[in-house]
Amino acid sequence: MRFHEMTWPLLRQVPRDRVVVVAPIAACEQHSWHLPTYTDTILVTGVAEGVEQRLPQEVLLLPTQWFGASHHHLRFGATLSASVDVHVDMLCDLLTPLLEDGYQRLLILNGHGGNIDTMQMALRRLQPNWQDRQLSAASYWDLAAQELAALAEGPRKSMGHACEFETSMVLALRPELVRREQIKNDPLPDEPVLRGLYVSEDMKQRTDHGAVGYPELASAEKGKKFLAAAIDRTAEVVQALLQRPLAK
Amino acid sequence: MRFHEMTWPLLRQVPRDRVVVVAPIAACEQHSWHLPTYTDTILVTGVAEGVEQRLPQEVLLLPTQWFGASHHHLRFGATLSASVDVHVDMLCDLLTPLLEDGYQRLLILNGHGGNIDTMQMALRRLQPNWQDRQLSAASYWDLAAQELAALAEGPRKSMGHACEFETSMVLALRPELVRREQIKNDPLPDEPVLRGLYVSEDMKQRTDHGAVGYPELASAEKGKKFLAAAIDRTAEVVQALLQRPLAK
Amino acid sequence: MRFHEMTWPLLRQVPRDRVVVVAPIAACEQHSWHLPTYTDTILVTGVAEGVEQRLPQEVLLLPTQWFGASHHHLRFGATLSASVDVHVDMLCDLLTPLLEDGYQRLLILNGHGGNIDTMQMALRRLQPNWQDRQLSAASYWDLAAQELAALAEGPRKSMGHACEFETSMVLALRPELVRREQIKNDPLPDEPVLRGLYVSEDMKQRTDHGAVGYPELASAEKGKKFLAAAIDRTAEVVQALLQRPLAK
Amino acid sequence: MRFHEMTWPLLRQVPRDRVVVVAPIAACEQHSWHLPTYTDTILVTGVAEGVEQRLPQEVLLLPTQWFGASHHHLRFGATLSASVDVHVDMLCDLLTPLLEDGYQRLLILNGHGGNIDTMQMALRRLQPNWQDRQLSAASYWDLAAQELAALAEGPRKSMGHACEFETSMVLALRPELVRREQIKNDPLPDEPVLRGLYVSEDMKQRTDHGAVGYPELASAEKGKKFLAAAIDRTAEVVQALLQRPLAK
Amino acid sequence: MRFHEMTWPLLRQVPRDRVVVVAPIAACEQHSWHLPTYTDTILVTGVAEGVEQRLPQEVLLLPTQWFGASHHHLRFGATLSASVDVHVDMLCDLLTPLLEDGYQRLLILNGHGGNIDTMQMALRRLQPNWQDRQLSAASYWDLAAQELAALAEGPRKSMGHACEFETSMVLALRPELVRREQIKNDPLPDEPVLRGLYVSEDMKQRTDHGAVGYPELASAEKGKKFLAAAIDRTAEVVQALLQRPLAK
Amino acid sequence: MRFHEMTWPLLRQVPRDRVVVVAPIAACEQHSWHLPTYTDTILVTGVAEGVEQRLPQEVLLLPTQWFGASHHHLRFGATLSASVDVHVDMLCDLLTPLLEDGYQRLLILNGHGGNIDTMQMALRRLQPNWQDRQLSAASYWDLAAQELAALAEGPRKSMGHACEFETSMVLALRPELVRREQIKNDPLPDEPVLRGLYVSEDMKQRTDHGAVGYPELASAEKGKKFLAAAIDRTAEVVQALLQRPLAK
Repeated sequence: MRFHEMTWPLLRQVPRDRVVVVAPIAACEQHSWHLPTYTDTILVTGVAEGVEQRLPQEVLLLPTQWFGASHHHLRFGATLSASVDVHVDMLCDLLTPLLEDGYQRLLILNGHGGNIDTMQMALRRLQPNWQDRQLSAASYWDLAAQELAALAEGPRKSMGHACEFETSMVLALRPELVRREQIKNDPLPDEPVLRGLYVSEDMKQRTDHGAVGYPELASAEKGKKFLAAAIDRTAEVVQALLQRPLAK
Repeated sequence: MRFHEMTWPLLRQVPRDRVVVVAPIAACEQHSWHLPTYTDTILVTGVAEGVEQRLPQEVLLLPTQWFGASHHHLRFGATLSASVDVHVDMLCDLLTPLLEDGYQRLLILNGHGGNIDTMQMALRRLQPNWQDRQLSAASYWDLAAQELAALAEGPRKSMGHACEFETSMVLALRPELVRREQIKNDPLPDEPVLRGLYVSEDMKQRTDHGAVGYPELASAEKGKKFLAAAIDRTAEVVQALLQRPLAK
Repeated sequence: MRFHEMTWPLLRQVPRDRVVVVAPIAACEQHSWHLPTYTDTILVTGVAEGVEQRLPQEVLLLPTQWFGASHHHLRFGATLSASVDVHVDMLCDLLTPLLEDGYQRLLILNGHGGNIDTMQMALRRLQPNWQDRQLSAASYWDLAAQELAALAEGPRKSMGHACEFETSMVLALRPELVRREQIKNDPLPDEPVLRGLYVSEDMKQRTDHGAVGYPELASAEKGKKFLAAAIDRTAEVVQALLQRPLAK
Repeated sequence: MRFHEMTWPLLRQVPRDRVVVVAPIAACEQHSWHLPTYTDTILVTGVAEGVEQRLPQEVLLLPTQWFGASHHHLRFGATLSASVDVHVDMLCDLLTPLLEDGYQRLLILNGHGGNIDTMQMALRRLQPNWQDRQLSAASYWDLAAQELAALAEGPRKSMGHACEFETSMVLALRPELVRREQIKNDPLPDEPVLRGLYVSEDMKQRTDHGAVGYPELASAEKGKKFLAAAIDRTAEVVQALLQRPLAK
Repeated sequence: MRFHEMTWPLLRQVPRDRVVVVAPIAACEQHSWHLPTYTDTILVTGVAEGVEQRLPQEVLLLPTQWFGASHHHLRFGATLSASVDVHVDMLCDLLTPLLEDGYQRLLILNGHGGNIDTMQMALRRLQPNWQDRQLSAASYWDLAAQELAALAEGPRKSMGHACEFETSMVLALRPELVRREQIKNDPLPDEPVLRGLYVSEDMKQRTDHGAVGYPELASAEKGKKFLAAAIDRTAEVVQALLQRPLAK
Repeated sequence: MRFHEMTWPLLRQVPRDRVVVVAPIAACEQHSWHLPTYTDTILVTGVAEGVEQRLPQEVLLLPTQWFGASHHHLRFGATLSASVDVHVDMLCDLLTPLLEDGYQRLLILNGHGGNIDTMQMALRRLQPNWQDRQLSAASYWDLAAQELAALAEGPRKSMGHACEFETSMVLALRPELVRREQIKNDPLPDEPVLRGLYVSEDMKQRTDHGAVGYPELASAEKGKKFLAAAIDRTAEVVQALLQRPLAK
């Protein structure tokens, strides 16, 4: 079910305790030389719509909130971004009317690395007041981390930015938006001694031209496999959430 | 030009002083018995894309921010809504990176009545720090008020909610989402003695089933005319803004 | 009744359901070459006190909050101003204790254009928590728009700033504060193509010396008529509000 | 000089370095059985205007901000009040345009005990950004503490609430607003062991009927003396501030 | 009892109505040439622990919050500081879980002058929601003002900064942290005409090298007496609070 | 070097570009039946002081900020906690004066799981304004994740709460505070299908008595090894940070 395509009478009939509300969030930001700024939005929407088609009775899909927390891309330009605090506020406001309207299970499905802190902050703000609900969040690449790693060909096995994963998936979904002739790898230097350390840097400090990974290895075919893996795992988690008892 | 479909190198080439950045904003909220919650988003996106197709070199179109200030619809349910304060914050954060990136002329193109206060508040917050830029905002029905009034058949000549105007335009753009059999007029009572007074009421206080106007008069054909009028006027304003000297 | 001149025992006896609490708000800001900064405060206080004298049992008048949202006048100097956000906060705090004390009907009576957004924002913040009360707001010139237009002699028929209307009314109420020798028209250029557009500009961008309109046409006699019209209409609205059933 | 009665051209001529801007702040709150809610505003305005008449070239007087931080009176009713945080915001916004307009010396003249914390907080917020200005604040009864103590007849020698001091001064300035037949002492119990301790209680917890002190001892004649003492001392401080070198 | 050294089962047994929760707060800031930045924390912790040892069943001691509101020391450097607003937020959050957990009596025990405004603001924010509790705060030198004045040898009889009092007490508690050879008096100029006036200045404006008072007179022996006086008086107040009926 | 034990003249001499400022942060919260609420503070302070002793010239150690973001423990009681937003504010204010005072490299050393989101949010807020500095953060158990896993005997190889790791280390540092007779394992149920999902639950929802892991396996001897591993790794990271070029 798609929240935004339904009327009020139809939405009133949705069983509050037998659906997972899926709220996709993403970004509109610089994506190296070759990908459109809407990459994260295209991809998480693709995953979310795939899950909704798979489980139309179990999923109530919201429209994708494309406005992400991307201040670490601002120095490159070509980026729209909410500050981290406004992003948290926005996510809290997005979920609160649904909680007040009785929905029991909510899943933020994330498609942008910069939203991880903010979506977790948002749920932490909400949790003390909604202890009888199921509040959850995930980046699709974390749900399918093992599967994606198994499919990747390049040396980087986890999601980067404008990388083998993202480039392949945009090639699968919106090939006309990819500037193939400008694809260029931009691997991060390895700093094993810093393992476990969070270093707060923006993309201009970390990368050369705004990619993190190996987009030269991308293909539309692989992109379809990546998407299928993400959809499979997300659908699996949605079904598990519906089985999981509500929090005490 | 569409910001979200462009890459970073393409966006760097956009002449900051010869485009109007158009930022459509809308809502996802209860729309009477017969219209989808995404009505405002569908309509303002339709207008904005029409303007961008008309003036592809003069307009830099952003993706539509569908998350609106709709707390006055919350008691009906079927509504996602930012509180007015978060909505102002969100709009300020949306425009700030564009101002910092040098764009000279910005137009918020609004498709939801509840956003009027907040978009004006946002521009008032930004204005003192960006006196050399052109900050503007309009609801498409205000730009084309005369034209829409001339085309309307019902007694209400200005935009309501789920009314003759909105229903006609959704019939023109996304007819499959309209539940025609449930269309029912819901006119507001007339209180001429209160002319000039702002009464703060939510939709449940003002209406019977969440419409304001005469949707029974709607038709797809009229919808196309309404949309054409809105696109014409908005394009005219965009061109006028490009001629207008920047603020001192 | 005047809230600020009454004692606690007297205020306890005011029937919460049979009065309209009238809260005048205004500004202290640059008013062209010839008017005192307190113009808006003098005028709305004059209107409000006139209404209270007309309807002493029906009106509970608060002291005028003279501190307005006037940042768009700051570049001229001679202006005290709350930022729009603080102004909204201040108005919410002003009304909340009255709501908690049981008053049923509140009317913000505004005398400054820059307060319109903020007073509406304030009521929108309050409304969801006070759905059984009557929350209303108006600029006195909007209540009496038709009457004032009929009385004006100059080409501008609606309230400007330091204009035919304001100058006449200050001449009627506080003539010693007007510097007549410095009165000079300052009409806004006409931009019909922009009809329906909100352009966010400060007064320095819009005007030459901080007036909007035709003060050279002002007279004390006309000022008395303007004031009488505003008082009449506001009193009429107060009486209508008392008849109007409370919101459901 | 009175800011609010002056025009823009006159205010431009005020020498920024040779005046003290005096900003009176007060409250509108419950004042026992016998005094009007506007008591604090009446009194501090009386003091401030007295100082301005004494030193018309040295003082630039603002209109009194009557909206005070009076939440500790709310349970009695008959009180308008800003929360402490909004009050601090409001005071910061009140002073900032004056600082930006070049005024060197500012004095908040306070007439309400509940504003002491907030005015000091406001100056602490402003100070780091305006280190070259003179930011000061005082309650008039603290400036004239010795003089008032010497004049008082009752056992309480410092300002209370609706007490010998306040009642006398309202009798001097606005006798028609005092309900003499309802005057009744309401002394606070003595707790010497708690000396030096701040106990956060509201007025309902601390007093019987909202007075702190001995209003039965009040007289208009004494009120005139109290006012004269407060005006003398405030004028003396204003002159001292003008001599005092600006902060480094 | 020490909150932080206890386990959950032990804390559950603490009788909520028969203890005073003591929350020491302090600072880490420049302290002239000779004292460590942790001076305020060392001293208030010394006092608080002394009281806890004296009254182990009556006091539930929290760990000292050393992060104070010290922006007025920042220009000297060697200072960690919360802005006044964050400090208020932090104190409110510190006390709220204790109130929610049922503790009846709370005493903020302060060791830094810059925290006085903020701790009072915090209690004023909390008070309206916790009217049945005892919310109190004090700087230890205010509780023992008479006793400390009687013990001081120098001309300054009240607490300054890095002064006879503070230096003596650090000499008593942590002598190895005092750089005796750099002790130098730094008396404030006397401005008797300004009595009763709050002038907002930072330490760099007020002092030469960041002391206020007569540290050259300090001795460890006197420090022990000062500490004993502060502990005695604080213990006396704690006992009085336990006797005092809860607020209505 | 320890910031809080130094005087102003000593701190002025610290070479801003050749030290890492280490800011330990922790919590005071429920820790199962057997550990004191101060556990996280004791442990991270132990690690941080160990590092400072190892590298006294390279480390400028701040006092441990023990007030953590522990709202997810509040329902158990025995917890002091800042809301996530106040915690972010507090961390920003903690670091800002150090950045303004010229320190180039900052490391937040964390000892409480609930602070991870907030410390990352704080650095993200600061980063856009301090792009030429090195802003980093880590939980000590993440820096030493491999080493701790290798030393653990129980089936849980990563840090839990009141677990084998924490209990062992408190036994090593403050054995008198551990209630050994009450130690009881409290393993989390395994939900492999949810891998990659963030579920927002409080401790009461996740655990039986507030432990996560296998404290029955704890020993002081192992605790010493855990601490040594954490100190080794943190010291190694500090040295690597000093070698790492500053951000562009």
